[in-house]
Amino acid sequence: MVRGALQMATADSDPGRVLSVQSHVAYGYVGGKAATLPLQLLGYDVDNVNTVDFSNHSGYNRIGGTKATAEELERMFSVMEQNGLLSPTRVLTGFIFGAEALSIVARTVTKLLQNDPNIVYLLDPVMGDANRLYVSRDVIPLYRSLLPKASIITPNWFEVETLTDTKIEDGASLHKALMILHETYSVPNVVISSIPLEQWLRDLTPPHIRFPVSDDEQSLLCLASVRVANGGSTPGYRPSTVYAACVPLIPGYFSGVGDLFSALVLGHYDDASSAPAPLPPLPRAVSLALTKTHAILRLTEKYASSLPPDERTTTDDELDGKDPDRRIRRMRGRELRLVQGRKILSGEAIGEVRQLKKWADFWGPK
Amino acid sequence: MVRGALQMATADSDPGRVLSVQSHVAYGYVGGKAATLPLQLLGYDVDNVNTVDFSNHSGYNRIGGTKATAEELERMFSVMEQNGLLSPTRVLTGFIFGAEALSIVARTVTKLLQNDPNIVYLLDPVMGDANRLYVSRDVIPLYRSLLPKASIITPNWFEVETLTDTKIEDGASLHKALMILHETYSVPNVVISSIPLEQWLRDLTPPHIRFPVSDDEQSLLCLASVRVANGGSTPGYRPSTVYAACVPLIPGYFSGVGDLFSALVLGHYDDASSAPAPLPPLPRAVSLALTKTHAILRLTEKYASSLPPDERTTTDDELDGKDPDRRIRRMRGRELRLVQGRKILSGEAIGEVRQLKKWADFWGPK
Repeated sequence: MVRGALQMATADSDPGRVLSVQSHVAYGYVGGKAATLPLQLLGYDVDNVNTVDFSNHSGYNRIGGTKATAEELERMFSVMEQNGLLSPTRVLTGFIFGAEALSIVARTVTKLLQNDPNIVYLLDPVMGDANRLYVSRDVIPLYRSLLPKASIITPNWFEVETLTDTKIEDGASLHKALMILHETYSVPNVVISSIPLEQWLRDLTPPHIRFPVSDDEQSLLCLASVRVANGGSTPGYRPSTVYAACVPLIPGYFSGVGDLFSALVLGHYDDASSAPAPLPPLPRAVSLALTKTHAILRLTEKYASSLPPDERTTTDDELDGKDPDRRIRRMRGRELRLVQGRKILSGEAIGEVRQLKKWADFWGPK
Repeated sequence: MVRGALQMATADSDPGRVLSVQSHVAYGYVGGKAATLPLQLLGYDVDNVNTVDFSNHSGYNRIGGTKATAEELERMFSVMEQNGLLSPTRVLTGFIFGAEALSIVARTVTKLLQNDPNIVYLLDPVMGDANRLYVSRDVIPLYRSLLPKASIITPNWFEVETLTDTKIEDGASLHKALMILHETYSVPNVVISSIPLEQWLRDLTPPHIRFPVSDDEQSLLCLASVRVANGGSTPGYRPSTVYAACVPLIPGYFSGVGDLFSALVLGHYDDASSAPAPLPPLPRAVSLALTKTHAILRLTEKYASSLPPDERTTTDDELDGKDPDRRIRRMRGRELRLVQGRKILSGEAIGEVRQLKKWADFWGPK
């Protein structure tokens, strides 16, 4: 309503405010620290409710700080509500420590969506990675019960398997997992980034989506699946329309990449200020998020590889075991270069957008 | 050392990292939330150690959240140190809850400065305002003992009086207070912003510094005082060189303005990327900080005055008493428009810089 005058003053649109519920770290960029600046650079006010307040991410092994108890989170949300400060247009939830805290968050999000069904809710069900769960198992049913509230979810491969209780090892199991998310849990938008392109998946992926490099082992698949409304009642039934792209793998481990990516997907979803493109809202948002995340990663890798030799150690558990500081030095050098890449994040310097492409035959030929 | 290559990639310099030790609020912009984005937009990495983690600032009356205990802060700093993450090039301390926590912060800052005397430390001795102390009295001696460590301090008028134990009511007492800060406490740079231009001060302030408006009651004085090295041994002795400017008062109360201003002073101090100006580092930094802070305030006021009538209530304790939500609505509408003003903060859209001018006869005629 009042946006016209302000736009003139600031030469920018006012896309709204994001309630971001995730971890805080003093040093480095994971969780809320990886999400906040990127969203602010897209014009969002960001309300940060910290689920933990730590010195650094867990990759450093040694961590200081505190976790918010369920009671503390409940009180925080309750006071914000009483003060009329729970007024987001979008909600982003990421790492939440433990089932009790998660159920408080779930209750708050449910209430918010009941009051305003237009809120866009991105749920990143942070539970684990690479076949390892790093939360207790009792959060799994809670995340499942939250799925139907989400506008967009951004699980990784392992989290999809965990949520759907499906080991994904071929086309049929991949179909089944996506079907469970779209139909059993009614999720309209599913984004799975960074899928290792194993042989069966490579064989499945059509050439126009596979990245045009000779060695496919070195690329990752990013998949965006948009539920087809009332798909079940049409002939040639398809649960979703699938879009995908491959990105070159950047070797080594960088923390906070998923948190950055999720924030960008939410920030760009249905964003009126984004340039018009021939893609629907989800694949367009994912294209921009993928492009920016990859550019930040490249900037980070470039920085890491410019450090003195003992600051840029390779991932090697054996050597790390002999010298605990070796791992810490590597972590430090690999913190995302968000501040240095702020023109990437704002979109002023991203170059060509890595567009997702439609995977027409994903569910089989028509 | 590695900055050259990165500058090309990002078209920006890398000025370093700021350790910011202050309050966090989920909603709105005070403390760390008012400091972080402005510093990031100047290119600094910001390490945020939260002294409190609150739902909102105290102006809302109702607050949820937690305070970090002295033990928690100590553990946080200790783990950061062990992980090699206490490596700032600049330090910013603001609101710290209680003497115990403040002494932990003081010890950490002292250690950091011993290890690296080149660290620029801005101390904002947040204690109170308008003749009201909002911390316990036992923090006063702690702040006094921290003064000699600071590169820059940004007390308000009341905090200057409290630190120097001097009621400032004329030129002589103002001289005395500044002398105590520069000489007894060896502070090289003192910045006092937002000084109400009472009659005696208006009479004292030379015309080239007074703002060229008819009604001087509506302006505030900002004063930057740079200690003269070895001033004591020269004839015509002056403890400092004083620069000043007047800014028009924007009516009503806005929270976080001092926190924003201090962050910008630190960010712009001795900043190689700032355009060259005929001013020394302190008054140049203060000129930029003043210009940006004032522009953000104008943007915020413009937004607040565009809200529906019941969201833009005037400051009126009597009416607030009858309707507690009245105050809350006012606070909400007056949160600083930092995100919307990010082109002001980055310097892309600030217009003419409000330059501080030298106050040659501040200490009396030569």
